[in-house]
Amino acid sequence: MNWKTAVDIGAILAPVQPGLQLVEAKMKTVESSLFTPLATAFVDLIGSGGKRLRPAVALMAARFNGELGRAQYEQVISLAASVEMLHTATLVHDDVIDGALLRRGAPTLNATWNRGATVLAGNYMFARAANFAAETGNPRVIRIFSDTLEIIVEGELRQLRARHQFRQQKDEYYQRIYAKTASLFAAAAEAAATLSGLEEDGIGSLRDYGHNLGMAFQIVDDILDFTGNAGSLGKPAGSDLLQGTLTLPFFYYLQIASRPQELLDQLETLYSGDMNSDDASWTRTVAEVVQDLRSGPAIEAARQEASVYLGRAASSLAALPDNRYKQAMLDLCDFVVQRTY
Amino acid sequence: MNWKTAVDIGAILAPVQPGLQLVEAKMKTVESSLFTPLATAFVDLIGSGGKRLRPAVALMAARFNGELGRAQYEQVISLAASVEMLHTATLVHDDVIDGALLRRGAPTLNATWNRGATVLAGNYMFARAANFAAETGNPRVIRIFSDTLEIIVEGELRQLRARHQFRQQKDEYYQRIYAKTASLFAAAAEAAATLSGLEEDGIGSLRDYGHNLGMAFQIVDDILDFTGNAGSLGKPAGSDLLQGTLTLPFFYYLQIASRPQELLDQLETLYSGDMNSDDASWTRTVAEVVQDLRSGPAIEAARQEASVYLGRAASSLAALPDNRYKQAMLDLCDFVVQRTY
Repeated sequence: MNWKTAVDIGAILAPVQPGLQLVEAKMKTVESSLFTPLATAFVDLIGSGGKRLRPAVALMAARFNGELGRAQYEQVISLAASVEMLHTATLVHDDVIDGALLRRGAPTLNATWNRGATVLAGNYMFARAANFAAETGNPRVIRIFSDTLEIIVEGELRQLRARHQFRQQKDEYYQRIYAKTASLFAAAAEAAATLSGLEEDGIGSLRDYGHNLGMAFQIVDDILDFTGNAGSLGKPAGSDLLQGTLTLPFFYYLQIASRPQELLDQLETLYSGDMNSDDASWTRTVAEVVQDLRSGPAIEAARQEASVYLGRAASSLAALPDNRYKQAMLDLCDFVVQRTY
Repeated sequence: MNWKTAVDIGAILAPVQPGLQLVEAKMKTVESSLFTPLATAFVDLIGSGGKRLRPAVALMAARFNGELGRAQYEQVISLAASVEMLHTATLVHDDVIDGALLRRGAPTLNATWNRGATVLAGNYMFARAANFAAETGNPRVIRIFSDTLEIIVEGELRQLRARHQFRQQKDEYYQRIYAKTASLFAAAAEAAATLSGLEEDGIGSLRDYGHNLGMAFQIVDDILDFTGNAGSLGKPAGSDLLQGTLTLPFFYYLQIASRPQELLDQLETLYSGDMNSDDASWTRTVAEVVQDLRSGPAIEAARQEASVYLGRAASSLAALPDNRYKQAMLDLCDFVVQRTY
C-alpha cells in the first residue's frame, strides 16, 4: 500500500471513525470463558487487517434519515460488527479450504492451529456474527443477515466447484463475485438503511450502491492479484489462477488471445486434479501467463469495467440528500479504483 | 438397535409425527440453484440418521398453551427444522475435525468430498439453520438460536482442547455435554414454548426438561460408546477414549480403579500428541481399558446418573397441564435410559 492511498482512505472514513471504533471494540469482545490462546488468535486475526469497508458502508448508509437515536445507533453498530465478523469468519474458513498459509502477509490461524481449531474458530465467529445480527432485534435485518450468509456460502461452493474449469462462462465470474463480495456490501447498506427507518426507495438505492461498490471492489481485488507483488499481497502474484480460480482479467486476456483454444488446451492438459498448485511446471506456466497478461490490455479492460460499476454505485445515490456521508460514499468509489494504480 | 426399542420410539413420537414430517420436508428443501452433487450429499446425510429427538422435543414443548394457530404452528416447524439443521451442521463439521470416516454406519460426507466442500457444506447448513430461525420472526427465538450456536461451538472448542488431558476434572465433562448436547435440547424446548405464547414459568419448566433430558441423552450416548459394538455404533467401541475424549463411564472407572494414578500415568506416557489414534499400542491399551471398564460397575454408575437427570426432566413437567404431549415427553425419558440395556 502506498502512503498516498493510506492517507486518502483515512480521510474518507473520518465521518464514520467514531462508529468504526465502536465496531472494532465490539468485535474484540471475546467471551472471557473462551480459552485464552484462541481468544488471542482471534484478536490478532481480527486486528491484522482490512480497511473495514463493509462496516464503514453500513455506518454511512444509516445516515440518510436524519439523526439516529441512541438505540438506533447501537443497532447500526451491532449490524456493522455482524457484517465484518461474518466476513472475517469466511476468511478463516477460506484458510482451511485453501490451505493458504499467508493472507494479508500475516501468518493465518491455519499455520499455527490445527484444522479442527480453525474450523471451530470460523464457526465461533459465525456464531458471534449471528448474535450481533440478533442484537438488532429487527426481523428484516436478521433475515438479510441469514439470506446473505446462505448466498456467501453457496458462492464459495460454486467457486470451489468451478476451480480448474478452464472453459467456464464469464457469467459464472459475475455470479461468484456477487455471492462472495457484493452480496455482503449490499446487505450492509440495505440493513443499515432499514435500521435508520428510511423509506423503501432510499433503502433500495443504498442497496444498489453497496451491490455495485462490492462488484467493483472484487474486480479490483482480482486485478491486484495479477498486478501486485508478493510483498504487497502477502501471496504470489497470480495466486487465483495458480489455484485454478478464473477472474475478470483472465477472461479479457482470453478474449484478446490470438489462440485462446490452444491456451485453454495447454492449461487443461497441464493441470490435473490431483496436482498440487505448487507443481513446478504448473507454476511456471501460470507465471508466464501472468507476465503476458500484465503486459497486455486485459488489466485496463478490467479496470474500465470496475469503473462502470463504480459509476452505477455513484448514480444510485443521486436521489438521496447531500451530506458528508454521501460525499464519503462517492469518495469511496474513487478510492476503490485508485487502488489499482 | 433392537426391534422393541424401534417400536417404542415410534409410538412415543406418534403425537408429533405430522409435525416431524413437515420438519423433514423443510430440511430437504435444498435451493435448486445449489449444484446437484452437493444437494444429493446433503439429502443423503440428512436422511441417513437420527431419531429427530430435538425437533420432537420442540414440537411437544409447543403444546402447553392451547391450540396453536396456523401461523404459530408454522413458526414452530421452522424452529424445529432450525434446531435439527444446526445439529446436522455440527455433525458435518465434526467429520472434518475428527477425520471420522464413519458415523451412524454410513459413509460421511468427508469420505467422498474433499475437506473444503465439507467445511462449506456444514456452513451451508448453518446458514439454512439461521434462516429457518429467522423465519420465526421472533426476536427472542432468534436470540436463543444464536446464543446456543455460540455455546455449542465454544463447547466443541473446549472438547478439542481437553482431548488427551487425562487429568481433567469431572466438572469439565458436565460443561462439555451441556454445551454440546443439552444446550440445544434446552433451546428447542424454550424456543418452542416461547412461540406457543406460554407464560415464563412454563417456558422455564420446559427449558429445564430439555436441559435435563439432553444431559441424560448425552450420558447415554457416552455409555453406548463403551457398550456398543462396531455394528451398532458404526464405529469401534471406545472410540471416544481412543481419540482422547474422556466421558462419564471413564470417570467412574477411574474412581473405582485400584491404582488410578498408575493408569493415568500409563495413558499419558503411551499417548503422544503427534500420535495417530490408530497407533497399535494405543489401540491395544484402550481396548484393554474398554474391556475392563465394561466388566465393572462404571457403566451402571453412569446409567444411574443418567436416571437422575431423567428424573429431574420428568419432575420439571409437574406443573404443566396433562396432555398426550406431556405423556410423550415422560415416555421419552424412559426411552432414553432404555437405550442402554
